Amino acid sequence: MNTPPKPAPRKNAISPSRAEDFPEWYQQVVNEAALAENSEVRGCMVIKPWGYGIWERLQRQLDARFKETGHKNAYFPLLIPVSYLEKEATHVEGFAKECAVVTHHRLEMKDGKMVPAGELTEPFVIRPTSETIIGAAFSRWVQSYRDLPLLINQWCNVMRWEMRPRLFLRTSEFLWQEGHTAHETSDEAMAEAKLIHGVYDTFLRDVLAVPAIIGEKTEAERFPGAVATFTLEAMVQDKKAIQAGTSHFLGQNFSKAADIGFIGRTGARELAWTTSWGVSTRLIGTLLMAHGDDDGAVLPPRVAPTHVVILPVVPKPPQEAAVHQACDKLAAELRAEKFHGEPIVVEVDKRDTSGGGKNWEWIKKGVPIRIEIGPRDLEKGTVAISRRNKTGEKEFLPNAAVVSNIAATLQSIQDSLLERARKLRQDNTVEINSMDAFREFFAQEQAGFAVVPWAGSAADEETLQKDLKVTIRCLPADPALRGSAGRPCILTGNAAPGSVVFAKSY
Amino acid sequence: MNTPPKPAPRKNAISPSRAEDFPEWYQQVVNEAALAENSEVRGCMVIKPWGYGIWERLQRQLDARFKETGHKNAYFPLLIPVSYLEKEATHVEGFAKECAVVTHHRLEMKDGKMVPAGELTEPFVIRPTSETIIGAAFSRWVQSYRDLPLLINQWCNVMRWEMRPRLFLRTSEFLWQEGHTAHETSDEAMAEAKLIHGVYDTFLRDVLAVPAIIGEKTEAERFPGAVATFTLEAMVQDKKAIQAGTSHFLGQNFSKAADIGFIGRTGARELAWTTSWGVSTRLIGTLLMAHGDDDGAVLPPRVAPTHVVILPVVPKPPQEAAVHQACDKLAAELRAEKFHGEPIVVEVDKRDTSGGGKNWEWIKKGVPIRIEIGPRDLEKGTVAISRRNKTGEKEFLPNAAVVSNIAATLQSIQDSLLERARKLRQDNTVEINSMDAFREFFAQEQAGFAVVPWAGSAADEETLQKDLKVTIRCLPADPALRGSAGRPCILTGNAAPGSVVFAKSY
Repeated sequence: MNTPPKPAPRKNAISPSRAEDFPEWYQQVVNEAALAENSEVRGCMVIKPWGYGIWERLQRQLDARFKETGHKNAYFPLLIPVSYLEKEATHVEGFAKECAVVTHHRLEMKDGKMVPAGELTEPFVIRPTSETIIGAAFSRWVQSYRDLPLLINQWCNVMRWEMRPRLFLRTSEFLWQEGHTAHETSDEAMAEAKLIHGVYDTFLRDVLAVPAIIGEKTEAERFPGAVATFTLEAMVQDKKAIQAGTSHFLGQNFSKAADIGFIGRTGARELAWTTSWGVSTRLIGTLLMAHGDDDGAVLPPRVAPTHVVILPVVPKPPQEAAVHQACDKLAAELRAEKFHGEPIVVEVDKRDTSGGGKNWEWIKKGVPIRIEIGPRDLEKGTVAISRRNKTGEKEFLPNAAVVSNIAATLQSIQDSLLERARKLRQDNTVEINSMDAFREFFAQEQAGFAVVPWAGSAADEETLQKDLKVTIRCLPADPALRGSAGRPCILTGNAAPGSVVFAKSY
Repeated sequence: MNTPPKPAPRKNAISPSRAEDFPEWYQQVVNEAALAENSEVRGCMVIKPWGYGIWERLQRQLDARFKETGHKNAYFPLLIPVSYLEKEATHVEGFAKECAVVTHHRLEMKDGKMVPAGELTEPFVIRPTSETIIGAAFSRWVQSYRDLPLLINQWCNVMRWEMRPRLFLRTSEFLWQEGHTAHETSDEAMAEAKLIHGVYDTFLRDVLAVPAIIGEKTEAERFPGAVATFTLEAMVQDKKAIQAGTSHFLGQNFSKAADIGFIGRTGARELAWTTSWGVSTRLIGTLLMAHGDDDGAVLPPRVAPTHVVILPVVPKPPQEAAVHQACDKLAAELRAEKFHGEPIVVEVDKRDTSGGGKNWEWIKKGVPIRIEIGPRDLEKGTVAISRRNKTGEKEFLPNAAVVSNIAATLQSIQDSLLERARKLRQDNTVEINSMDAFREFFAQEQAGFAVVPWAGSAADEETLQKDLKVTIRCLPADPALRGSAGRPCILTGNAAPGSVVFAKSY
C-alpha cells in the first residue's frame, strides 16, 4: 500500500511529441504547464501565475545586473505622439505597420452602444519601443558633459500589432525592459552597447542555461534607426534560432531626432551618442523551447518559481497527520537553505486529489525537484527524490542528505540543462563552404546553424530569405566561428571578411 | 578651512513655502527633488529615477505582504474590448468619460503625414482597471469550488484620461497594483476585502509613516460596480484628505457580468463572490504631502532609495585621496548593516561641484541621513551627521557609533515622521454637532477632518459637495470615531447610525 506511484510513464504527458510536431508541442507545453493563454484581445496573452513567476525571477536577477553596472530604473509614458515617431525616418517606417493607435479619449452612448468620442487633435501610438519619448526626456535632462553618461532602464509593457501571434515568442503586447543611455563620445556608447551584450550573454548562460551565439546583425536585420545591432541567438530543439535579446549602438541618429545636445569640454555644443537594449517575455518562450521535453516544461532552477515540491503519499487517513507533519518539517528545513543567495522555494502539495495526477501536474510544470514522502519513508527516515531533468529516475535518500545537498542538487540540474543545450547547438552547427551544400542543409525540415563565408549584399540576403526561409542571424563575435578573412563567399565567390551564421528562425 | 558649510539656511530651499501656497509648494518639491515631471503627452508623467526608486521600494514591500497572505502575481492584457466594459452597467458608466480608445492598428503615409489606418472592427480601451478582462479569465479558470479561492494580483500601468492632472496624485497614466480574487461564499469575499484593507493600513503606517483613517465609503463614493468600498484616508499638511487606497467587496456583480460560475459542494452551479483592491503611484504624492517641509521632500527611511549620503568635504586637492578613502570605508561598513532585513543603501557623492550645492540637493531629495567627512574629522575619527527630519541640527559622532547605530537612527527617523503625521491628524480632527459649526469649520482655507453624526442621503452629500466642496471620506471603522448610534444627524436631525468623516480632498 505504501509503494509510491510508478514513476516510469507508459506514454508521455505532452501530445504531440517534439519530434511529431514541434510548434504544436510548444503550444501544448505552455497550456499544460499553465504558463499563459490567449485572451480575447487578438495577440494579447494572459500570463498565468506560473509563467509570471518565471518572469519575476528573471526580472529580479537581470535588474540586479543592470544596477551593478550603474543603471537606474525610471518610467516613461505609454503613449507616444505620432509626430515623435516621425522624427527618425527609418524608425517610423520600421514600426508604422504594427502600431496600436489611440484616437479618442472617451466613450459615449449612441444608438444604445458605447462608441469612441472626444477625438484627439493628434493621435498617439502605444509605445512599440521608447527611443523617441525617452529621447525627448534626455534632451531636457542633459545640459553639460557633466550630466553624462545617463544610464536608464525601464521595465514596462509594449505593443506591436501581431498578425500571427505565438504565446511568449511573438505577441501583440509583451513585457520587457528597455535600456536607454546617452554618452559623451562614440566610443563610450559603443562600449556600453557591448557591455550590455555581455551582461545578456552571461545572464542567458548562467541563469536561463541558454548558450547563445553572440554577434552583430547585418544592415538588413538591424533595429530601425540603429548604426549597429548586437544580438544573442539561441538554438532551440527544432534547431531554429530565436533572437533572445539585442543591444543597439544608435550613433547620433536619435540624439539628432530628439536634440539631445550638451555643452562639451571645449565649450562647444555637441550631440550625445546613444544606445538602447532590451529583452522581453520572449525569453520565457526561448527557455521552454530550449529545455522542455515530451513530458512538458523543464525549468532551470534559477528561474523556477518553486524549486521543490513535496508530495505526501497517504493511502490511509489515519497516517495522514504524521505524513503531513513530516512534509512540513522537511519543507521548513529546505526553506532555511539558500540557492544563489535566495531561500529555496518549497511547496507542499496537500491537495486532496490523486497522487499520480498531482505528480504529473508538477512534471508538466517543470518543477526541478519532486519529493514524495509516505508512511514507510517515515519509518526509514528517507524520502523519494525525482529530478525533472532525469525523467523516470527516483532516488531514495536520507532526509538529512536531501537538505544538506539541496543547493548542489539544484546547481547540478542547472548545469546539466546548459550542457545539454550546448551539445544540441554544437551538434547542429555546421561549417558550409558551397551553395549546393548550403541548399541541401536547409532543405532539411530541422536544419541547424550554418556557418558560411559571406560577402553578399542586403539584396542577396533577401533572395535567400525568400528561397530558403533563412536569414543571417549574426556576424559571430567568436573568432573560431567568424574565421579568417579572404575565403570565398559561398554565394558571390568574392573574398569574404569572415563567416556569418545562417538559420531558420522564430 | 576645514569647517563644513554652515547648516542653518538663511532661507528655505523651496519657494513658495507650504504656508504660502501648498499646491505650488508640492509642485516645486516634486520638481526640485527630481521625482517626476510632466511629459508632452497630456496628463502622462515621466517618473524620474529618484521617484521610481521610491516606487520600487514600496512595491517590493507591498508585494511581499501580498505573497505572505497567499496571493500570486499574473499579467492580463492592456486592452479591453468595449463590449466587456459594457457588461457591468455601473462600471462602464463610471469609466466611459475617461477612457483612451484604440481604434486602429497601424499608421500609413497620406499627404506626407502618418495617419491612423487599419480600423479595428471593435475598438478597445486601454484598461482603466481590469475587473472585466480578469473576470473573463476567472470564468475560464474556475470550474469547481476546489478552484476557489483564486487570489491574484497584477502590477501594471492603467489609464484614466485626466483633464486636470497633478504629478503622482492624479495622472492620466499611473502605475498601480490591482488585486482580484474570487471566493466560494459572500463571507469569504468580505473577509478578503477586509484583510487587504488591514494590509494596506499596516503598510501605510509602518512603511510610509502615514496614519490613515480607515472605514467604508458611502454609496455615492463607492467604486463603480462595488457593493462595498473600504478606504484609507490620509491627512496631508494642508489638512485635506487623500484617498490612499481602496479595497472593494464586489458581491456577485462582476461574476454575473463575466459568468464566473462553479460547481458547488452540493453539485449545483453557483456564482463566485469577488473582490478587487488597489494602491497606486498616488502613494508617492501622499507621502510627499504628508512629510515634506519647506526644504523639500522628507522621505520615510523605509522607502528612501538611498538611506545615507556621504559627502566628502575637501578644501584642498592634496587631502582628497585620504578623505575619499575614509568616505568609502565608512560606506562599506554601513552597507554591511541592515535595516528591516535589507542592506543599508549608501551613496558617496564625490562629484566635483560645490559642497553647499550638493548638500542642498540631498536635502531637497529628502535622503534621511547626510554624513560629512573632512580632513579634520579624519584626525578625530568622527563624522558630522545630519538627519533630514531635524533641519539644521548636526551632530559630531565617532565613526563606530554611527555604524553600530545606523538601523536605530533610521528607525527613529521613521518613527518621528509617523508621530508628527499622527499629531497633525489629531490636532485637526474635530467633532462637530451642528450645521453652523460645520459651515464655519469648512469656511477655513485649511480645515481638517470633521467627525459628524450623519443620516443624510446621497443627494444631501451632493449638495454639501457643491456648496462647501466637502465629501464624506468614510464611515470610520474606529468605534471611537464612529461613536454611538441615535445621535441627531447634523443636517436632517434624524437619528444617525453613527458619525462620518467629512473633509476637503485631493
